Amino acid sequence: MREYLTIGILGLGTVGAGIPLILEENKKKMETILGMPIKIKKVFVRNIEAKQNLAQIYGIELTTSLEEIVNDESIDVVVEVMGGTTFAKEAIEQALRNKKHVVTANKDLIAQYGEELVLLAKENQVYLYYEAAVAGGIPILRTLATSLASDDITGLYGIINGTTNFMLSQMAEQELSYEKALGKAQKLGFAESDPTNDVEGIDAAYKMIILTKFALGMSLSLEDISIQGISDVTLEEIKLADKLGYKIKLLGALKRDEVGVDVEVCPIGVSNNHPLSTVENEMNAIFVESTGIGESMFYGPGAGAKPTATSVVSDLVTIGKNLKNQAKVSQFNELSVEKKLVDKSQVVSKRMLFLQSKSEESQLKSIQLFFEKEGIEIRKVTGQVENSTTIYSIITDEMTDFSIKNCQDKISEELSINVLSHYKVL
Amino acid sequence: MREYLTIGILGLGTVGAGIPLILEENKKKMETILGMPIKIKKVFVRNIEAKQNLAQIYGIELTTSLEEIVNDESIDVVVEVMGGTTFAKEAIEQALRNKKHVVTANKDLIAQYGEELVLLAKENQVYLYYEAAVAGGIPILRTLATSLASDDITGLYGIINGTTNFMLSQMAEQELSYEKALGKAQKLGFAESDPTNDVEGIDAAYKMIILTKFALGMSLSLEDISIQGISDVTLEEIKLADKLGYKIKLLGALKRDEVGVDVEVCPIGVSNNHPLSTVENEMNAIFVESTGIGESMFYGPGAGAKPTATSVVSDLVTIGKNLKNQAKVSQFNELSVEKKLVDKSQVVSKRMLFLQSKSEESQLKSIQLFFEKEGIEIRKVTGQVENSTTIYSIITDEMTDFSIKNCQDKISEELSINVLSHYKVL
Repeated sequence: MREYLTIGILGLGTVGAGIPLILEENKKKMETILGMPIKIKKVFVRNIEAKQNLAQIYGIELTTSLEEIVNDESIDVVVEVMGGTTFAKEAIEQALRNKKHVVTANKDLIAQYGEELVLLAKENQVYLYYEAAVAGGIPILRTLATSLASDDITGLYGIINGTTNFMLSQMAEQELSYEKALGKAQKLGFAESDPTNDVEGIDAAYKMIILTKFALGMSLSLEDISIQGISDVTLEEIKLADKLGYKIKLLGALKRDEVGVDVEVCPIGVSNNHPLSTVENEMNAIFVESTGIGESMFYGPGAGAKPTATSVVSDLVTIGKNLKNQAKVSQFNELSVEKKLVDKSQVVSKRMLFLQSKSEESQLKSIQLFFEKEGIEIRKVTGQVENSTTIYSIITDEMTDFSIKNCQDKISEELSINVLSHYKVL
Repeated sequence: MREYLTIGILGLGTVGAGIPLILEENKKKMETILGMPIKIKKVFVRNIEAKQNLAQIYGIELTTSLEEIVNDESIDVVVEVMGGTTFAKEAIEQALRNKKHVVTANKDLIAQYGEELVLLAKENQVYLYYEAAVAGGIPILRTLATSLASDDITGLYGIINGTTNFMLSQMAEQELSYEKALGKAQKLGFAESDPTNDVEGIDAAYKMIILTKFALGMSLSLEDISIQGISDVTLEEIKLADKLGYKIKLLGALKRDEVGVDVEVCPIGVSNNHPLSTVENEMNAIFVESTGIGESMFYGPGAGAKPTATSVVSDLVTIGKNLKNQAKVSQFNELSVEKKLVDKSQVVSKRMLFLQSKSEESQLKSIQLFFEKEGIEIRKVTGQVENSTTIYSIITDEMTDFSIKNCQDKISEELSINVLSHYKVL
């Protein structure tokens, strides 16, 4: 019978500092569940002096030597919360080779090198867990791997980037321009000084790689995902969408049919009746469509020191329980199937179109006739006069990218109406 | 190495019939995860003839002898989906004593006898799982037991009864009276011919017993929970609440502070900005407040053959994985702490009040003054003239039950304004 679950931590930044806090706050509960305490043996940092105060508060021993952690016989689990993909990868590899279980919150690393790291963990018969790598406080990976193991997932739609969701919420609620919303996000620490990774959808795409692996067992790379960020979304469009009863959200979207899967990240119109529509500001949510359960959604904070640290510690509890029960080691996700992508030109989506006519006179009738002729059903349409032009907002039935392009050209030719912009609709 | 996970099923009703369907549909995925197929050995039914057709479709052997299942050496797991608490209890006890693992969807049974059954499972070193017993398609019990093991839960608010949520949604959307909504629910099979258990909140209270055990480790009985159903909720109130930007939902509500816990089931006003507000019709959701993650929500169908069967099968997969990994048997929920209830008279909630004045003249000013004098902040107030009276709808800050009673008496005395009704607000 082991007396402790002994851990070493790599990194004592925002998330790292949350771990001793969570271990302290919920000590009693976890001891009841685990039957033993979780003990921090040592924490690796770059600069001991900078972290000395924090270390003293929790009575933690610091070291600048990675070896002191990965070679320490008494350490059961190495927790990596440094971020980055070079040093972190090496450190995790060393830990795995030394038969240490590993917990990491490193999304970039898992999205890019997950497969080889999982293989290494398997070879060494140790656990590699990373619940916190996607949507910090939402236990979506564990849920996909366990509760949805008996289900067949056909769609997954996630608000999985807090920065962009915060910006879009602020634009809608406070009527801010894109630039002002970005500035506010940066000021509040929700966006980095170089926000590219977030606003251009790359962060969300990495998360979709991990989610696709858990939902379907397919290993995608960034090139398999079409990615469009929010930098072209305007306050004007958000207001027009609002009048239609829609919000514009940056979604990671996975659709699967008998042929294969299509994954994309882009701004999508979400109806105010849809559960994803109430997910505001820095909150995240993942909406799942499946043949068994039907529709389900998992909502919570996507980042933050405490939620992320809580997720990391939940992985520790899971590993600790398995060790206590002397289970043979199995991996976090055991689903693996061949990658099959559908032809993106064949993927259909409902659409939200914003059109502009130079006339104040209503052309609603001719617009409706136009779409009827094209064989596309219109689900909703509104028009409003603005500066001696008329803006029409339309929700259509499902269309391919080609057919939207085609309509765009034709409607301009035939009715002299410009398509200002268009979005997919959930 | 075992070749199959062999199961026996007790009952082939709606949920029971869903199990072979799910096992068939997602065979391949589960085999990848489990490394072995799940095989139905035999199904116990009362009347073989009535189920013969169904049995033939799936190639299932039927029996009317419980012993043939609980005494069958080759059966690993007994799945109980008959319902009821007398025969089902005996059957499960026999199975556990014969060292069979058990999966059940039986909420009433677990809420009433969970503790002794878990004890029996422990004694016999077998698993007893029951994810489907609460909120059918939502994996809330597993989430509380695993992902939230590292967190400290301070509040839990659940829409956990599909019948009443359907009725309240229909009243709001279709402007139906309570009676018409009930009739519609009965016609569609969402409500039983005797709807008492659902509409009076008893079903939700049973679920709160199980949720409280998983969230906090406390074992409550029905007497510990204050229960109020929806039979007094009127269409008029729903419309007034809507004008304030609120929906009326039947919630199971758990609040915890340093002293103890308070659990109740009652209709509660939910703001349209709150994620629980988009949970409509037969859908369920559980909203959790905790010190680590903060706020999270788990949404999905609360009942139905396929969602519930999917949940049951996810328990089978979990048990199968543990058996494959030769883990020592642990129980579904290992949290257990002493019951501590707070004094209900001390519990505070924000309130929604509907007042009626016999005058058409606005008394907004005097109402505001009245609450100010009482030291209660008003967060929102609207007034509308109706049949030569004025109806005021108010959202207040937190008040105890006593203080609402006190206000009710005083405002009638001092301003001749009647409190028509009042609800707690989330």
